[in-house]
Amino acid sequence: MAVYTQVSDDELQVFVAGYGLGRVLSCKGIAEGVENTNYLLHTDKGPYILTLYEKRVNREDLPFFLGLMDHLAARGITCPLPVHDANGQALGELAGRPAALITFLEGIWPRHPTAMHCAAVGEVLAKFHLAGDGFTLKRANALGLAGWAPLFQRFEQQADSIVPGLRARIADELAHLTAHWPRSLPQGVIHADLFQDNVFFLGNELSGVIDFYFACNDALAYDVAICLNAWCFSSEGQFEIEKGTALLAGYQRIRPLDTAERTALPILARGSALRFLLTRAFDWINTPADALVQRKDPLEYLRKLTLHQQVRDARDYGLGAA
Amino acid sequence: MAVYTQVSDDELQVFVAGYGLGRVLSCKGIAEGVENTNYLLHTDKGPYILTLYEKRVNREDLPFFLGLMDHLAARGITCPLPVHDANGQALGELAGRPAALITFLEGIWPRHPTAMHCAAVGEVLAKFHLAGDGFTLKRANALGLAGWAPLFQRFEQQADSIVPGLRARIADELAHLTAHWPRSLPQGVIHADLFQDNVFFLGNELSGVIDFYFACNDALAYDVAICLNAWCFSSEGQFEIEKGTALLAGYQRIRPLDTAERTALPILARGSALRFLLTRAFDWINTPADALVQRKDPLEYLRKLTLHQQVRDARDYGLGAA
Repeated sequence: MAVYTQVSDDELQVFVAGYGLGRVLSCKGIAEGVENTNYLLHTDKGPYILTLYEKRVNREDLPFFLGLMDHLAARGITCPLPVHDANGQALGELAGRPAALITFLEGIWPRHPTAMHCAAVGEVLAKFHLAGDGFTLKRANALGLAGWAPLFQRFEQQADSIVPGLRARIADELAHLTAHWPRSLPQGVIHADLFQDNVFFLGNELSGVIDFYFACNDALAYDVAICLNAWCFSSEGQFEIEKGTALLAGYQRIRPLDTAERTALPILARGSALRFLLTRAFDWINTPADALVQRKDPLEYLRKLTLHQQVRDARDYGLGAA
Repeated sequence: MAVYTQVSDDELQVFVAGYGLGRVLSCKGIAEGVENTNYLLHTDKGPYILTLYEKRVNREDLPFFLGLMDHLAARGITCPLPVHDANGQALGELAGRPAALITFLEGIWPRHPTAMHCAAVGEVLAKFHLAGDGFTLKRANALGLAGWAPLFQRFEQQADSIVPGLRARIADELAHLTAHWPRSLPQGVIHADLFQDNVFFLGNELSGVIDFYFACNDALAYDVAICLNAWCFSSEGQFEIEKGTALLAGYQRIRPLDTAERTALPILARGSALRFLLTRAFDWINTPADALVQRKDPLEYLRKLTLHQQVRDARDYGLGAA
């Protein structure tokens, strides 16, 4: 949670004037999002999110992210919609940063998700995968298999400072995944970060999906594996089969997994657990304990990885018989 | 800027249900306020601020602060209004903290105030002083003259680590102020923290005053001196006479200063500069450089103090002839 960049009232009003949203009524920095600075802006036309893209986001990726929101929204996914300026541009500049205005989605993300939430997430993920079809821009997954070894090298020497033996655990897992990673699963645009704080609900209804800043082209079933890790564990770290069952059934109501995807699910779950273990371990080592951004526990994902290493069949996640 | 306390969606909905505001539509932690946790809440009835009072706020003071908002709003001051629950209570409890819902004021605080803003601030400050009349609760100024020496003692030994000589400068000033502080000026409820970020504008119109968590009973003219320090210096630290003139004239259009107040203005400005020098120096020494809360520069107020020590007459601030 952070506001990295302050925006003055003068430059804000000039910026917003280009979008035809009327007067700026208020603008509050919000404590959501780790990568970018976000403001909740009220204008005569309603509420908007103003995002200033900070250093960790590659400027060249912004047309992919913003274009994807346009594409998905046009295909019925409830997601924020970039506002285009008088020249049709969604991407502008403010306070020396690339910046965009996007529509504000009402809703609250669930702190204690239930099987009901998991079913809705599975369903919206499958709709997202279908809606991504036809989106012409491409973005490789910088945090996919090919990115894991270089990321690991950046903190390998210090890994055991988090917990003794971590370095060997990661090295062994990397070797296993490199040897066994499935390479011919159905591909498409994946969200790649559909954690709880990126899915909003109003009551029991899913009201929207946000934060497309890790979206990329990769195996669709890998996105399902990310969600199993993000949604289907108890706060004590136990896998909860009724949540897995609900999530997978919700997904398959919209897009049934094929045989190769079903078979691959355990190894995709291992890969997904390793991916978040790697980024969290890297951040743990490189972020001061009292920094603006709160560090996330890497060991949560080491425990998840350990569980997936023992799974041999997607039925252990609650996948129905073929 | 900080969100110290996280609120779960479940407990939030239970809390808000007691206030008759309809459904919770969204709730975003906002990066404003140093003392408390603030959320911008959207409900069916509109936007609200949800404040959770953290440790630095004395729970016993909360009825004064919330009651003052009620009192002032009823007398025409545009300020946030506490929402009362079905039992008439403005103060509740959420996530283990005292908590209140207050109406949301649209407006933006001016990052580069002009004489126009200063005139409006002077005017609203005088209206605030008149409107405070009749408010029956009392709160002593914990950061008034009597509080400065004990606060100084808490960091006196380390003061010179901020800048050599600071300890002697503060000790000398404390002695001078103790000997010369005016004790029989007109008293009333003062805001005591009317800095830029607490005054909102829509275009050129002042749209509201917020943050009453330093309000207390003290000399009204001391509040004017706080505003001279907060509003009438350039970003390079120069006193700007046209801003002072505008602020004082704005104030006097509503509530003319009496002779004793006019005479006292330079020493009140010294006291006000010392008050912010003391709290900023204390925070500077006791807050890690990379903490969640950004430290404010104490030396800005040492420079202001130096200027006020050279002033002999309130006309130097732009006060018109009597």
